[in-house]
Amino acid sequence: MVRRDVLKLLVALCAPLAGAAGAQTSMLPSWNDGEAKRRIVEFVHAVSTPGKDFVAPGDRIAVFDNDGTLWAEQPLYFQFLFMLDQLKAAAPNHPEWKSNPAFNALMAHDKAALAKLGHKPVLELLGAANSGMTVGEYDATIRHWLTRSKHPKIQRPFTDLVYRPMQELLAYLRANGFRTFIVSGGSAEFMRPWAERAYGIPPEQVVGSQQEVKFEMKDGRPVLTRGPSFAFIDDGPGKPVGIYRHIGKRPIAAFGNSDGDLQMLQVTAAGEGRRLVLIVHHDDAQREFAYDRESHVGKLDKAWDEAREQNWIVVSMQSDWNKVFAFEK
Amino acid sequence: MVRRDVLKLLVALCAPLAGAAGAQTSMLPSWNDGEAKRRIVEFVHAVSTPGKDFVAPGDRIAVFDNDGTLWAEQPLYFQFLFMLDQLKAAAPNHPEWKSNPAFNALMAHDKAALAKLGHKPVLELLGAANSGMTVGEYDATIRHWLTRSKHPKIQRPFTDLVYRPMQELLAYLRANGFRTFIVSGGSAEFMRPWAERAYGIPPEQVVGSQQEVKFEMKDGRPVLTRGPSFAFIDDGPGKPVGIYRHIGKRPIAAFGNSDGDLQMLQVTAAGEGRRLVLIVHHDDAQREFAYDRESHVGKLDKAWDEAREQNWIVVSMQSDWNKVFAFEK
Repeated sequence: MVRRDVLKLLVALCAPLAGAAGAQTSMLPSWNDGEAKRRIVEFVHAVSTPGKDFVAPGDRIAVFDNDGTLWAEQPLYFQFLFMLDQLKAAAPNHPEWKSNPAFNALMAHDKAALAKLGHKPVLELLGAANSGMTVGEYDATIRHWLTRSKHPKIQRPFTDLVYRPMQELLAYLRANGFRTFIVSGGSAEFMRPWAERAYGIPPEQVVGSQQEVKFEMKDGRPVLTRGPSFAFIDDGPGKPVGIYRHIGKRPIAAFGNSDGDLQMLQVTAAGEGRRLVLIVHHDDAQREFAYDRESHVGKLDKAWDEAREQNWIVVSMQSDWNKVFAFEK
Repeated sequence: MVRRDVLKLLVALCAPLAGAAGAQTSMLPSWNDGEAKRRIVEFVHAVSTPGKDFVAPGDRIAVFDNDGTLWAEQPLYFQFLFMLDQLKAAAPNHPEWKSNPAFNALMAHDKAALAKLGHKPVLELLGAANSGMTVGEYDATIRHWLTRSKHPKIQRPFTDLVYRPMQELLAYLRANGFRTFIVSGGSAEFMRPWAERAYGIPPEQVVGSQQEVKFEMKDGRPVLTRGPSFAFIDDGPGKPVGIYRHIGKRPIAAFGNSDGDLQMLQVTAAGEGRRLVLIVHHDDAQREFAYDRESHVGKLDKAWDEAREQNWIVVSMQSDWNKVFAFEK
């Protein structure tokens, strides 16, 4: 016990130093000086400094959307591209798909037909193509795909396309006692293999949509097998539900980029005490992509209006970030 | 950055001391010297010491059943008693329940009728009686009930009925770099209000069964409202599913007490490398309760057989624990 007490003492002695370091902005070098950065730093200082806005470390919960907020999402959600590749790979074993309108529209990249069909038959088909294997086998497939696939336009591995300023922001929040979570419309198993390295977020802090998973004994060993249907969609009104189920506390900070994040941002903003609510606006066609109200992927319309009404922070990628990706010169 | 480096250095310097402290058994004073304690300490030492059995801290995941493993569960799961009280409180507003066989059997404590009805109509009724309010309102009801209710036999608040040796074990594991999770057939919202104080386990590390929850705007404010049906049952084959969805890693240590924990224990045992699998056997009628194969609550039958076959640790509450509850003299 004496040795543990020494450790505790040393940590206690250093805590004020760590706190002081937290107020520094040297941890956010990719952020230009401006309103967004200033408001972030002010908020973090306020909730982590004894005073009227102080929040206990255990309650400093920050939630981040993934696609379009922490990494890119154009021309299509990367997980969608992965699931499409799984569909193609499985097609030879499924001759019946040749008469499936969703399959034919996907293979022909027929956007008009897809728009007419709606999400349901497409998700059903992708769910079927991404099921039947154990979760371990599926995990291996994801890891393999991520190492050999490249973004169609930027021609780099998808995991290179994480936003450097958001990596800095995550580290800055954690250095100030925050616990950081991903709350994504994508599924957790697609993010967990790389989220810890890319974002410093461990698997148990990744919340996402869920395909059915079933326990069974296979060759005398207990395994989990993927089913074809979705058990939970962690998007739009599903995000606050995912947060409630997984985290069990209302976040004090939330970060998103599209209408799919609106309810998560609303629930965060509605809590008592000081809050940080931030939207990333994709307005940088040169370094990344420019899209908002009319986009089919990551549409930002209602959430943008609400951000203006509620005075949430809207980050301009073009003017607030001096770097988007780590690989930029 | 210099100050942060100093902190890092001090923590690094102290890490070996903390590791050495971990091998001590002084953190387990309520455990008698014997096979169970010896095997626990050996396992923890092996996985936290550089060598062939070493496991990186991020992978030192330990999962605990709650009812019957971390606190008592007789004569009925405490959450069931709570939900019954909610049913009674809601009854005046539901005259239609008077013709509901499950309601009448519950009110009359008619065990024969309940056994004949099975779980489904009872759960449906309890689900209905425990829904319709916001999650915040329900949380307040739980907290209020816990402060004013007492165990029918032991005549103490239910939260006094946590097992002292398991509290010590949780702290001991965490002191050795483990992350500890509850994986319970009960629902998370019933455990979260007190699990951090009782067990040192924060809300986001509590996994449980889930009633439907729905996002809606109410009087212009975003709220989550409880629905009547269950979205997920985190029991039996559901426990490994809950672990996969919530934690995303296979645990290396698992603790249970009944057949409802069997699949969680099997999945933990089936991983590669050294594992710790432990069952608490309730054989102490004097200090707590004695029950196993024939019990309606916390039945221990198949999991006991498997524990013997697989050489899992079976803890005798009577002989392995010199103290069950903290309030004992």
